[in-house]
Formats: sequence, structure tokens, C-alpha cells
Amino acid sequence: MDTLQQEGGELEWKESARWVKFEEKVEEGGERWSKPHVSTLTLHSLFELRTCLQTGSILLDLEGYSLPQIIVEQQITDGLIPPDLKEKIIFVLLRKHRHQTKKPIHRSLADMGKSSNTASSNRSTSSTSGIHRSTEDLRSRQSSSLGRLRESHKHTHLKNKFMKKIPRDAEASNVLIGEVDFLDKPFVSFVRLAQATTLGGLTEVPVPTRFLFILLGPHGKTKSYNEIGRAIATLMVDDLFSDVAYKARDREDLIAGVDEFLDEVIVLPPGEWDPKIRIEPPKKVPSAEMRKSVLNLNELGQVNGLAGGAAGGEDEELPAPHELGEELKFTGRIGGGLWLDIKRKIPWYCSDIYDGFHIQSISAVLFIYLGCITNAITFGGLLGDATDNYQGVMESFLGTALAGSVFCLFGGQPLIILSSTGPILIFEKLLYEFSKNNDVDYMELRLWIGLHSCLQCFLLVFSDASYIIKYMTRFTEEGFSSLISFIFISDAIKKMVGAFKYYPINRGFKPDYITAYKCECIAPDQAPALGLNASAPLADDNMTLLFNLTDLDWSQLSKKECVKYGGMLVGNSCKYVPDLALMSFILFFGTYSMTVSLKKFKFSRYFPTKLRTLISDFAIIISILVFCGLDCLLALDTPKLHVPTELKPTRSDRGWLVMPFGKNPWWWCVASFVPALLVTILIFMDQQISAVIVNRKENKLKKSCGYHLDLFWVGVLMAVCSFMGMPWYVAATVISIAHIDSLKMESESSAPGEQPQFLGVREQRLTGTLVFVLTGLSVFLAPILQYIPMPVLYGVFLYMGVASLSGIQFWERIKLYLMPPKHQPDFSFLRHVPMRRVHLFTLVQIVCLAVLWILKSTFLAIIFPVMILGLMVVRKLLDLMFSQHDLAWLDDILPDKDKKKKEDEKKKKKDKKAPEPESDEEVRKCTICQVWICLS
Amino acid sequence: MDTLQQEGGELEWKESARWVKFEEKVEEGGERWSKPHVSTLTLHSLFELRTCLQTGSILLDLEGYSLPQIIVEQQITDGLIPPDLKEKIIFVLLRKHRHQTKKPIHRSLADMGKSSNTASSNRSTSSTSGIHRSTEDLRSRQSSSLGRLRESHKHTHLKNKFMKKIPRDAEASNVLIGEVDFLDKPFVSFVRLAQATTLGGLTEVPVPTRFLFILLGPHGKTKSYNEIGRAIATLMVDDLFSDVAYKARDREDLIAGVDEFLDEVIVLPPGEWDPKIRIEPPKKVPSAEMRKSVLNLNELGQVNGLAGGAAGGEDEELPAPHELGEELKFTGRIGGGLWLDIKRKIPWYCSDIYDGFHIQSISAVLFIYLGCITNAITFGGLLGDATDNYQGVMESFLGTALAGSVFCLFGGQPLIILSSTGPILIFEKLLYEFSKNNDVDYMELRLWIGLHSCLQCFLLVFSDASYIIKYMTRFTEEGFSSLISFIFISDAIKKMVGAFKYYPINRGFKPDYITAYKCECIAPDQAPALGLNASAPLADDNMTLLFNLTDLDWSQLSKKECVKYGGMLVGNSCKYVPDLALMSFILFFGTYSMTVSLKKFKFSRYFPTKLRTLISDFAIIISILVFCGLDCLLALDTPKLHVPTELKPTRSDRGWLVMPFGKNPWWWCVASFVPALLVTILIFMDQQISAVIVNRKENKLKKSCGYHLDLFWVGVLMAVCSFMGMPWYVAATVISIAHIDSLKMESESSAPGEQPQFLGVREQRLTGTLVFVLTGLSVFLAPILQYIPMPVLYGVFLYMGVASLSGIQFWERIKLYLMPPKHQPDFSFLRHVPMRRVHLFTLVQIVCLAVLWILKSTFLAIIFPVMILGLMVVRKLLDLMFSQHDLAWLDDILPDKDKKKKEDEKKKKKDKKAPEPESDEEVRKCTICQVWICLS
Repeated sequence: MDTLQQEGGELEWKESARWVKFEEKVEEGGERWSKPHVSTLTLHSLFELRTCLQTGSILLDLEGYSLPQIIVEQQITDGLIPPDLKEKIIFVLLRKHRHQTKKPIHRSLADMGKSSNTASSNRSTSSTSGIHRSTEDLRSRQSSSLGRLRESHKHTHLKNKFMKKIPRDAEASNVLIGEVDFLDKPFVSFVRLAQATTLGGLTEVPVPTRFLFILLGPHGKTKSYNEIGRAIATLMVDDLFSDVAYKARDREDLIAGVDEFLDEVIVLPPGEWDPKIRIEPPKKVPSAEMRKSVLNLNELGQVNGLAGGAAGGEDEELPAPHELGEELKFTGRIGGGLWLDIKRKIPWYCSDIYDGFHIQSISAVLFIYLGCITNAITFGGLLGDATDNYQGVMESFLGTALAGSVFCLFGGQPLIILSSTGPILIFEKLLYEFSKNNDVDYMELRLWIGLHSCLQCFLLVFSDASYIIKYMTRFTEEGFSSLISFIFISDAIKKMVGAFKYYPINRGFKPDYITAYKCECIAPDQAPALGLNASAPLADDNMTLLFNLTDLDWSQLSKKECVKYGGMLVGNSCKYVPDLALMSFILFFGTYSMTVSLKKFKFSRYFPTKLRTLISDFAIIISILVFCGLDCLLALDTPKLHVPTELKPTRSDRGWLVMPFGKNPWWWCVASFVPALLVTILIFMDQQISAVIVNRKENKLKKSCGYHLDLFWVGVLMAVCSFMGMPWYVAATVISIAHIDSLKMESESSAPGEQPQFLGVREQRLTGTLVFVLTGLSVFLAPILQYIPMPVLYGVFLYMGVASLSGIQFWERIKLYLMPPKHQPDFSFLRHVPMRRVHLFTLVQIVCLAVLWILKSTFLAIIFPVMILGLMVVRKLLDLMFSQHDLAWLDDILPDKDKKKKEDEKKKKKDKKAPEPESDEEVRKCTICQVWICLS
Repeated sequence: MDTLQQEGGELEWKESARWVKFEEKVEEGGERWSKPHVSTLTLHSLFELRTCLQTGSILLDLEGYSLPQIIVEQQITDGLIPPDLKEKIIFVLLRKHRHQTKKPIHRSLADMGKSSNTASSNRSTSSTSGIHRSTEDLRSRQSSSLGRLRESHKHTHLKNKFMKKIPRDAEASNVLIGEVDFLDKPFVSFVRLAQATTLGGLTEVPVPTRFLFILLGPHGKTKSYNEIGRAIATLMVDDLFSDVAYKARDREDLIAGVDEFLDEVIVLPPGEWDPKIRIEPPKKVPSAEMRKSVLNLNELGQVNGLAGGAAGGEDEELPAPHELGEELKFTGRIGGGLWLDIKRKIPWYCSDIYDGFHIQSISAVLFIYLGCITNAITFGGLLGDATDNYQGVMESFLGTALAGSVFCLFGGQPLIILSSTGPILIFEKLLYEFSKNNDVDYMELRLWIGLHSCLQCFLLVFSDASYIIKYMTRFTEEGFSSLISFIFISDAIKKMVGAFKYYPINRGFKPDYITAYKCECIAPDQAPALGLNASAPLADDNMTLLFNLTDLDWSQLSKKECVKYGGMLVGNSCKYVPDLALMSFILFFGTYSMTVSLKKFKFSRYFPTKLRTLISDFAIIISILVFCGLDCLLALDTPKLHVPTELKPTRSDRGWLVMPFGKNPWWWCVASFVPALLVTILIFMDQQISAVIVNRKENKLKKSCGYHLDLFWVGVLMAVCSFMGMPWYVAATVISIAHIDSLKMESESSAPGEQPQFLGVREQRLTGTLVFVLTGLSVFLAPILQYIPMPVLYGVFLYMGVASLSGIQFWERIKLYLMPPKHQPDFSFLRHVPMRRVHLFTLVQIVCLAVLWILKSTFLAIIFPVMILGLMVVRKLLDLMFSQHDLAWLDDILPDKDKKKKEDEKKKKKDKKAPEPESDEEVRKCTICQVWICLS
């Protein structure tokens, strides 16, 4: 909207507001655009607009030249204004236009259609003295509503950032509203051009104009005119009304359009709302199709009847059923599922590579890489402990790199990250103890178990067994993923608490008595020392050391050396390590909380959106760097990440290849079938649940998934890893979720004020592959990696655990316990399920989780995946406790029960779809709008 | 709103929504009230309602018995329904009512007026079999809108929490909406009772009913009927419409009321808003008076003309001018201001005491007490250093207690907290150095300066000089208070950094080489040691020590002893103190961030509002306790708060009273007039600016203030403190703001959904007095206080500094620099002042502050208050740079310029006030509403 202002004695139109979808106002005196907001109109103005359209002149499909003349002459012909005002009105219409943020553009309505045709030779004649006087009282407004602009335009000087927000082939509607003192009744004209034409500087951006609405009226009603201008601009950006305006044949069509709009309008009672409040654009608005179908139904008089069928109608529909897609259909053919998976994934393969080239990928790779190596190191260390270094950190690194990169390159769902998991670790531990106690060769036994397990996996793949995943509902998924998240969180905290034990703080320390604190290495009496040490530690040392022992300067020895040579550590500071525990805590907690705050920074008001998104995307990397920097600065000896630097097996007495025969009796090859069964269940459950979580509908994955293909590769890798004596790998839920989160896409160029929509995930194979290649190369990156303190990585672990909890409905429901009803968020299930039932359902889940947690902490951890099957049984039992209606909202309905419902619903949908208009329409275009005010 | 439901074969009305001010819906199947929200109506339903009122029967001022009969008979008389339906309709109307949250209450409309009169003997007769059949298809709704309920009610079993939300003497409107299959056109009836009558269980809470709206209609339009019910309920809670309903004489009055409502209604375009979104109640709604006056103006046809006068009318009004109230008027009489101050304060004196009895006071007292003693200790310590302990921590404690409690008991603004401030400290330091260098007795000189200064203060008081404060605008105030806040923040951080210097961390520490770290005290060679030590440290020791020196076991000595006896500290751990620095940091930062999060907790969704408010009120105390606990747990030797335990002057060679004569030549008594002048300016500025900040209009103080009285007492205390050799005291901005913040009141019982309003501050003398009494008693509290680590208190300081920054517009404007325009909050000044000007203004302020900061850091700090005067000059110069319009929004207009404007505005106001209705109305009552749905 422009305002007609007297600038240096001259009258001009000034832009005062614009609409693309929502209203943006030029702040009075603010010289800036307001935030986009929902246009709140007064009912009054809409009725006045309706009257205007009824009485004013409607000119449809005009040619784009000499417009002012035509408009004014039409009015004179209609007898609406006396002929002597013609010149004056044309003069006002031809005033210059001035845009927000710019010096006045010296073009006016007189330039209309210049590019296309003859036009406006009467500009000079119109400035008569009679009119000059009148301009002093003249107040007028123009609202230019841009709509549907064409792309073939090259006014480069006008291309500004705003242009980016406007969809291609949009066209503009210009609304000119003014107040002049020579009129005694309003002059109204609605014009539709036959062809969208560029009207010079009329619009802010090079958009051809299609519609013109002109309202000039007598003095004294500025506010009312302005409201009418806002009303018509809002109407012009309305999807349905703009359709009407394009197709209208006469005045009646337009008025019907206004009436239709009025019929749909939402009303706020004046006592409950202050009209000055600018309403933020909502997250979602009903689509034009939806509104149209409702309207059509209304016309058919059906909507009330239909809605009346269910109690209270409006939002009684059941939530969309849990659909796992065709990937999990039982084909009935051998390997049919696998074949379909491959057929599904092949066409995407190229895009899987080039979709990865995006700045977001860098952040994702770094983040997941750090997660992976931390995981590899922790599990490597634990495995090394459990198996006397038969599998150590080195094997863990190489195995992760190998398994991960193969899976990411060829797997069905390359977003899944493979990793060692807890249950496998426990299995290996038990297996090693068993083989040590029974004198069986561990590596060979393990190889056979791996091979059996691999075969069993193939069996599952070729029999399409993955289809049973369909029976896993939200209840099971959420139980599993929250459990894994809790394990992450508790592990991170445990490690941190461990630091306090590993670096005990000297609590009684008094700075004044520093002289009393010491720790000395005192030589034992020579004889017992030699006798003691001769047994173990000196065994692999050479004789020179033994020789030197007597000459040792005991007080110069370090703590380790002292212990090694059998010295006694005497003193009150020996058990304590200063600063490190507290420093570790600061690093740990600092990394975690900085990551959280940086992630939240995305929603702050500071800095442009792009920068904020970048900061939020790189939140983890930034925090890691900051706290590594802090650690370097203080130069304390905090525990650091230590990566093996040489490519050789951790244990020197094993090679890179495990031989299948030779060390164990032959029947072990057969007997290992039994433990392999356990491993297979474990892997199957772990892998497929993670896959289901990754493939959730909420993630809007477009390149379908491949459960069978995934399992196939896990089986293959199992065999390979067994041969190479590396750990077994399976999908890691938390890291996979983190991977997906770091690759989420949001829509960018939307109309001002529209919320960015979550578009989906950058599905590709590049990030995953890179992560694992980097993991493999980590052996060479050791000099850099050694600057990363472990507490920082534990902080990252904590963040991963907490982040993967958020967004789980189960977690939201737990929070509800603490909220009084009136503060609870407006979850859709709360609108439909009684509070008691919701709480009861949550309680059942909590109890299940608690049981699982306890089992996990005992040796029963090995049957952990079987417990997940147990969850599915519990879910089945819930059918007895809860109504299907409640379960549909809180969980999903189990497939067999689902079927009938679905069919019913399909029928319903068909009924509903029937009256919908055939979509022979052009693709809906976004309409934009500007309003200008012009004052003397 | 109740729904008529078939429960065990019987038909009943079920409550489905209620309105007090905003709508609360019963969630479908949710069995709970929704959050209060703004009722979004459809325009359609409002028009339908209008039609209903036009065609239905309107029964005004009925007696409250046999209602159903009357209603139905009236309709039959009017020929709207055939007489044979009478029984059926009455049957439906008499069904039982069932409230949300309760078992059905076995009362029905049939009980109407039972308490007052005869009534309903026809209940049994109405249940004919013909109707029993019909109930199977019968769907009906009832919306009972409670309004204006009377307090004289004693149905104790119905008294629930909801009752608290309803204002006294409210009355109810009940809206019954139903769908029955025996009608073929709607049955509409609007009833107003002559006397509000309790209609049994009709309303959820014991509220007498005044209005009834009944709509029964043919089957198939439930949704539409429901919308009509919501529309009438919304209308009934509308302030203006309910007035109309009370006063209406006939149908036309009601319809005019609906039209008036429609005229004001706010419309949201359907394409920009999803009607399913529930709109949260706004912070502020236009008051009924405002709306009425706008309406009246509209009727007079003036509003457009008036608004048209300014460009764009709607929000062009200038902000309310900066009014300091009559307290600062220049009376022209000697001591006139002081006399008025006393006269103003006396009537409040009693309430000043008993207003203090509130739980909030406890939190405020503890918080401010901790702030005060921390301040007393820090300043005491610094003063002790600066004056060789002539004034130390002990003097600081007693002085604070004395000055503070006197001021709080007798001062004009008891919310102000007195404290030592930076500029005074610097003055004392310079003064002490001067007197030491010139052999003048410091205490005596100081006494005379104090006396002169006191006299000068009296002079200022009696000449009403405080009126010049009027020239201090927001610019000056904000500059001053941000500077003080920055000093607080920087001091807290400096202290923290100091801890790292005081407890150096051994950065090169390697846990393994612990054996190499030691610190030993080594005896110097006897001769040089004795020779050296004979000079200073041994001077005040007795001979026995000297005698023992040769027998000393040097290795057993502590660090301090070792240094004392001239030993050498040898070793690589001597300069380091482990853990304490990091622990201090954790305590410092932990206290700060926990306080911030607990304060924010008030706005979270968890726990009931009361508990959250409590937690937020006690945030600081909770954090202090938590971190003291943590400190105790780790039992590290962190620096603790040490309070002197004996009541004697810090320096043993001075007494509690300073004699005015004897030590210095007589002319010093006169000469001290000059430095006293400096002190007076300093005190005057410091005191009055703090007072202006405390008395800000935003704080909504009701018991006016007393600038002259304040200054009078500061003068008196100045003299007293000088005599007793205690520091001088003046208002401390940051602590005073913290005091006010901790005493803020918010409205409690408001209609569901209404935002609590900030009501003002608990103005009283009790908290302040208690704080200072406690400070005085701290000497005896030492055993408890010694558990508080200093870093925790620094954290509190940091919080105080940061908290007092928030809410300063200057700070908000600084933040704007970092925000892209579209994310900027909707500040009113941004709507009216161009961005460039806002930024320029902020920049000027930043430069001024930077200059002040630099000055403060040099010896010029002593003329710091004069610099504040400088700020006022800068502000005067800004008149040349900025237009008065911009300044009015960003700052305030200076008084002289203000005058003319004010007069103009007064005129305007008078004009505006003229058309306003004479307020002969009863006090506006809040209206409440319930809606019920009833389905078969």
C-alpha cells in the first residue's frame, strides 16, 4: 500500500502495505516493513467493499493502455461522476509512485503499458492550477497487490530480496485508495486487464499487473477507505477469491465471490480480542482444495448431515493409521522381498550420491564421525577387556569402517549407521568366558557362530520374515528407542562419575598446609623388592634394568615406575589427583549445555535465519571445538581420545584372518548353531526396530527403504567380520536418529510469514560412507584426534541420548504427569482420550521399561531382544485394557484389527472424495500483495 | 455446554462448554476442560443467531417458576409450534443435567425456582411413551452460560475450585441447544427472568440464572445448532451485549445489540487462518468503556474525522508523557516539599507495616539480606584496605544496619535500600591518602566533611532542589542504571577471575609424576634468618618464639608459619592450589544459571501455578542453598563468607565516637566545606536517580514517594555516621531494583485464560527494616553464615546485575542491532520511529556509557555524579539531532517543551471525554458461561 504524500510540494502515492500471503504493513514513520501477520479485518469494511463492488464500475478484460481515461470515462458514461471531474481524477491517478525502502520511482500510472503501446500523452495537460489547490487536502491511498508474476522480466535494478519470496509466474493486483476533496461520493473501479501488463514502477518488484482496484472518495473517511483497501487486498490473495476474480464474467460473480468469502470467514468477539494485536501467521492453513471441498459440501447441504453422524463432528476423525508401506508385504515368493527391495533402490542410486553435495552434509559427517569413533573406542575398549584383547580398539575401528561403509554403499536404508551394541558386547563376554573355561578356541568358535548366524539371516531374508515388523506399533518402537536413549544417557553420566573416582579430589586440602602434602617413592628393602618383582613385571624386561635396580634413585621415579619396581608410595597426596575431575565435569557439562543452547539458537530472534540455521546445524562441532580449545588453554592433563596409530591386531598372537578349522573338534561347527540362533534373534530385532524407527512416517523419507536388503548385508558383514576377527555390527538406533536429525531439510523460499515446512531428510549414501571412510582413516588422524578430551565426547553422548528422547510421544506423555491440565499442550490425543486412560497407558509403558532396564542390568541382557518380543505381547494384551478408539490415538491399531477399519475408512474416503471438484485446474499459484498510502 | 446423552437408556443434558470470559470446551471423550481460548465463531452462526432472535419468542422479565410451560405455551400462542408438541418439548427440557467432572446431578430444569416457589408438578405426566421412542434420535445441546452470580449461596457440595474464578454477584445465562426429531422447524426461546433464580443443578456452581436461551430443532443440523449456541454464549459474556440484554425492552433492542456486536467484530480471512487452532487469550483486551466510547464516537460519525486528522489514524497517538507526579513540584516555600512529603506519607504509615505480612516478604528479606551483607563485606573489605582499617568490615556492617533501618522506618520511599557505593569508596580512598600525606587526622577531617555535607543536603531539601530531577529523562535514567548494572556484572566476573589468580592451577600437572610434586619448608641458615627476621615479623612476637626458633622442626611448619619464620618454600607445587579455582567457578556459574532457570520456571508448563510462583520467588534462596550444599558435600576449602564476630571497631586505636575538635587546626573545619560540596553532589545525584528509577511509573507504586524526605534522612544519617566513624550511605540502584522485583504482585483470581495482571509492588517498610535488623544481627549469625562460599555470592551478584538490565529499553534497543528487521519484537517505538533513528539514538547512548565507563575506571571516578549531569546535557543536545516525535517515542520530552504539548493534549482529551457516557452504571461485572452437549 502506498500513501499519496506531499514531498517537496508534490503529490505522490506511497506504498503502505503488501500481501504475498500475509499482510506486511509499512510502519508509520518506521520506514520498514512490519512482520508478516494475519490481516484482521473489520466486518464493516467487508460489507462496505461489497457495496463498493455493487455500485462502482467493473471493467473486465481491458487492454493495458490509456487505462485512466477508460476508467474515468466509463464512470462518466455510467453517470457516476460529473464529466467536469475527469481531468482532476486522471491527474490524481497519474501521480508518481514511491516505494518503501526506495527514493520515489519517477514513473506513474501514466507509464502504464508504455512498453507495449502508445499511451498517455495527456500528462502535462492534466496539471491544471485548479487541481494544484485541491491537492492540499487530498489524501489518498493506493494498495497495489501483486499477484501472479511472470518470470520473463529483466528490470534488474528492481530485483531485490523480496523477489525471491515471490513464486514464479505470479501476477499483481494493485489497489489504489485515495481521498480527494473534489468528489462528493466515492469513485470506485475494479479493473481486470485482458493480459497481465507491466505498469512501470507501480509494483515494487517487476511483476506484471492484472488487477486494479481504485477507490477515491470525499475527504474525511481515510480510515474507512484504508480498511476497504485492506479488505480487497486480503480478498485478492485469498486462493478461492482470486480464482473467482480471474474467472468472473460480471459484477454478480465478484459479489458472489465476496459472499463465499464472508461465509467462510472466522470471527473473533471484540470483547476477547484487541484488534491492535498482530496475529502471527499460523503453522498450517487449510489448503484451498480442502476449503473448496467443504464449500461444495456446504452447497450440497451435506456437511451438517455428515458431521452430525459422529458426535460433535468437527475433529472426530481417527488419526491416520500406522502404515508401514509395501516394503513389508509378504510376497510369498522366495527372496521376493529382497528382489523388490533391490528393484526399489536401484533407480535412486545416482541421486543417492549427488544429493549428498550440500553444506549440511559436512556438519552431519563431522558430528556422526565423532559419535562413531567415540562409540568405536568405548566399545573397543570394553571388548578388549572382555576378550583379553582378542578384539580390541584396533579391530573395533577397522570393523566399524568396513561394515559401515559397505552397508552405506549397498544397504537398503543408507541413513542407518552400524555400530557395536550393548547386547552383542555382553554375548561376546559370555562366549569368551565359556571358551576359556572349556578350553575351546574362542576365535574359531566365534567364526562358526558368525557363519551360522549369517546363514540364518539369509533364511530370514529369503523367507520375507521381516514382515512381522508390522506388528510393532508405536508402543514397542518407543519402548525400544527410549530404552536405548536412557542407556546412552546413563552411560554418559556413569563415565563422568567415573572420572571423579579415577581422579579423586583431595577434600581435606588446606592451601596453608601445602608443605604437608607430598608423595614419595620409597625404596623397599632390596631383598624383598627383588624377590617380589622377579615374578611378574620384570619377566619381560631385560637384564640391564634388573642390573640397574640397585642403582635406582627412588625419589626420581614416577608413580608407575615406582609401583613397577616395587617401591612404596608414601604420603598423603598419593591417592589424589587435583583439578582433573572438576575440569572433566566442566568440559562434560559445558559441551552438553552449549550444544543444547546452540541448537535452540535457531529459534532466537538474533541474526538472519541462514546464519542461525548454520549455527544450529554445526552446534555440536562448535561446542566440541570450543571446549577442546578451553582444554588446550588450561593445558590440564585431562583424559584424551587415544586412537591406535599402527595397523596391526591388538593382540600380537593373532593374525588378520581366522581359520575355520584346526583348533576345535569338528562337532563344534555344528553345535555353534544354537548360540548362533540367539545372535540372529538379537541382530534381527535390533536391526529391524532401528530401521522402523528410521523409516517412521514423520521423517518423510521419499526414497523407500529396504528391510530385507538391510538384513541381507548385515548377514554378509557378519560372516566377513567373523573371518577377520572383528566385532559384529548392527544398526545403532541413537546414532542413526542423530544422523537423520542432522540431515533434515526445511522449505526455504516461502511467502513472508509462512512457517518453513519440514520437507524431509537429505537421503543419500555420501555422508554415511564418508563417516566410515574417515573412521578408517582415523588411524592416521591420531595426532589431531588426541587433542579431544574424553569428557567432551561424553557430553556429546549425553546430548545424543537426550535429543533422541525428544519428539517421542511416550516422553511427552510422561511430562504430562507433572502438568496441571490447563497447562498441557494441545496434543490431539488429549482432545480425544480421557486423561486417566492416557496416564494409565503411560504407566504401563513405564513399568515395561523399568522391567527391561532391570533385565538389561543383569546377565539376562543377552535375551534382551527377546524381551522386545515381550513388549509386543504386552501390546497385544493392551487390546483388552483399552478401547480401540483410545489405542488408535495413543498407539496404532494392530494390523488384523486395522484391516476392517481401513476398509470402512476407504469407503468413507471415497464418499468424501466424490463431491470434490475434478482437478483440471492449473497448479495453484501463490498471490502477493502490496498496499501503499498517499497523503498530502 | 451440556450434551443430552443416553446414559443407561436415559436421556440427559451434558455440559459441553463454559464461558467465564473465554471459552472452555469439554474435550470430546477427553472428560476434561480444554484450555481457555478465544471463541472463534463463524459469521454464518452469528447471522443464524440473529435470525433466531428475530423469529423465536422473546420472553422478558418472567417469574422463575413453571418456566417450561410458559415458554412452550408462548410459542404455541405465537403459532410457532403446533399444540400437540407441547408435552414432548417439555419432556426434553426437563431431562437431568450432567456436569463435566461429576456424576449426573439428579436435578433438571424441572427444579427451576423450587427454592423460591411452587413449580413443576407435571414431571411424571410428561414421560409418555411416544416421547420415549423419539429420544433415540434425539440430539440436543444445552449451553448454560453462567453470568453474574450472587454470593449468598450455600450449596457447599458444589463449591469447587472453579467457583474461585467467578467474581462475586455474577449471574448465569443458560443456553440449551438440542436436536429432536419431532420438530420440523426450530424452536427458539430467549428468556430473561425478572429475578436471578437458582435453577437447581442447571449450573455447575451455585450461580443464580438470569437468562435462558433454548434452541431445539429438527434432526441433522447438530453442528450448526452448536455453533449458534456458542455464538449466543459468546455474546452473553460480551460486556456490551450483556448490558444490552439486561436492559432490553423488546426484541428490537436485542437485535440492535447483535448488530452492534457484529459491527465491532474482528474478521480473519479463511485462507490465512485454520479455524481449528485455538487462540490463546491475549494479554490485554480493550476495556468495555473504551469500546463503548469508540462506538459512541462512531455513532456521532466523528471517529473517522478525528483519526483522519493524523496520518493513518489508528495508532498514531504519542506515548503517554513522562510524568513525575506532584512530588517534584517546586513549592516556592521553605521546606514546602519536605512538609508535603511528610503529609503524603503519614496516612500510609500503618499499612506500611501490616502490608508486609506476606509469604513473599520472607523470600524478599532473605534475598536482599544476602545481597546486603555481601555488599557490606566487599565494601567493608575494600574500605579497610583503603583506610588502613579506620573503617573496616565491622563498621560497614553496623553502619549498613543503622543507616538502612532508620531509612526504611522513616524515609519517604522505604523500598530503597541504602548501601555503600563505588564513588564514595573512591572519595574515601583519596581523602585518606591526602590526610596521611599532610599529617591531618583523617577521622576528624571526615567528620567535618560529613557535617558540612549534611548541612548542604538540608539546604537542598529546604529549597526543594530535588525538582530538577524532572529534567532527567529515560535517557539519563537508563544510562545510569545500565552503568551500575555493568559495574555489578563486571565486579562479579572480576572477583571470579580473581579466584583463578588466587588459587593458581598447576597446569603442567601429570598424575603419573605425583612423586615429583612437593613443597617443603627449608630452614634458612640460622644467622641470616635471625638477622632478617629480627627486623619486622618478629617485632610483635614474644621472646619465647625467638628462643624456640632454633628448635623448630621446619618440615612440620605450615606455609604461613614458614614464611613468617623466614623459611624458604622449596618445591614445584608451592605456588599452586588444586581444585579450588575450578570449584569456585562451578559454584559461581552454577548459582547464576540455576537462579536464571528457576526464575524462568515460572513460565513453564509444569506444576500448578502457585508452586511455580513459589519456586520462582525463592529461586535465589534455593540456588544458594543447593550450591552451599554441594560445597559442603565436597568439603573443599573454598573461600567462605567471614563475618566479624565481636562488636568492636576494626582498628583497636579508635573508639566508637569521633571527636570534632582537638587533632586538627581549627580552619580545617571551615575548609572541609569544599570537599563536602563534592560529596553532596555525589550523594544527591546517586540518591535521587535511584529514587526516580524506583518510582518509575512501570512499577505502579501507589503510596507516593518522598524525594525531599529521602534526602533529608540521607543527610541526617551522613552526620550520624560521620560521628561514629562509619561509612556514608546512599541509595543503591541495583539492590533497590532487586528489592522491588522480589515484591511484585500479580492478580490472582482472574477468569480462566485471562493473563494475570501486574498489580504493583508490595509497598511496606517491613522487609527493608528486617533486612537491616538481620544485617545488624549478622555478627551473631556468623556460625551459620560461614558455610556460604563467596563464589556463590558472586553468582548472586552476577544475577542481580543481569536481572536489572532486563526491562531497560536501552538494552532492548541494543539487542535490535543483532536482529534482522523481520524478527524484531513489535515494540511500539519501532512502529513509529525509523530504524536508522532508533539505531542512532542507541549508538549515542552506547558512546555516552563507554565514556562514563572509562571515566569511572580512572581517578576521575570522583566526579562521576557530575558526569551524570553531563548526560543530561547530552540529552538536551539530542533535541537538535532528533525530532520531538522520535524523542517522545524513544525517550521523554523535556519538561519545558512538554508543557505546550501537554496543554494541547489536555484539550484533546477534554474533547474526547465529552462524548463518553456519564458513568452512572454499576461497576462492570464479569460474566461467565458454560456450554453443555446432550446426545442420545
